[in-house]
Amino acid sequence: MTRAECDHMLATTPVGRVAFRSDGEIQVLPVNFAWVDGTIVFRTAAGAKLEAAARLEPFAFEIDGWDAATHTGWSVLVKGTSMEVLDDGALSALALTHLRPWSGAVDKRRWVRIRPDEITGRKIV
Amino acid sequence: MTRAECDHMLATTPVGRVAFRSDGEIQVLPVNFAWVDGTIVFRTAAGAKLEAAARLEPFAFEIDGWDAATHTGWSVLVKGTSMEVLDDGALSALALTHLRPWSGAVDKRRWVRIRPDEITGRKIV
Repeated sequence: MTRAECDHMLATTPVGRVAFRSDGEIQVLPVNFAWVDGTIVFRTAAGAKLEAAARLEPFAFEIDGWDAATHTGWSVLVKGTSMEVLDDGALSALALTHLRPWSGAVDKRRWVRIRPDEITGRKIV
Repeated sequence: MTRAECDHMLATTPVGRVAFRSDGEIQVLPVNFAWVDGTIVFRTAAGAKLEAAARLEPFAFEIDGWDAATHTGWSVLVKGTSMEVLDDGALSALALTHLRPWSGAVDKRRWVRIRPDEITGRKIV
């Protein structure tokens, strides 16, 4: 997939998965996210995702789609650097996005941003 | 989610994502898979997934499902040990499963098995 196709999928897909190392293991957790100014942003509560985001370790983010009937699919993998958003101006801008936590069970007040170092996409046809 | 619910989702979901470290980065790649005797099996060609599977490093496997309209979803994360299947008897048994590569572009003759050390599932409601 071209970079423009990857960007389009990032802009139009509501859920992806963050993957990172934690305690020597690999964690993969789905998040609903937004694609804002060429970065991935998502909300979270205190916990593993936020701790990992602050560690400046390799962070990956994946989205995909597939059709079991036609055996076709696509995926986009973003490798990048994650950080918690702490700047007041940036937080105010993010508050204007449509991104809301899906679950009301946990209070997800914190924002994490992933700045892509590399974006690759592929199609399975 | 209970372990029985996780097993059910593993038995009925055709596509998941393998996640592993490679060259200091995290890779996340979708695969179509089968749940066989409490293990995850998938086919692959020579490449990053096969090399990672042979390294006995932490390997994660994730499946999920979500509904953007209702803001609900679920995910199952399997942490385990991966290995290429090389035993003739095991390969014969796997050849009888319905698992076929979705893409005919690359010859995926090799089989990888992930033995779960830990299976956790959660629902987003």
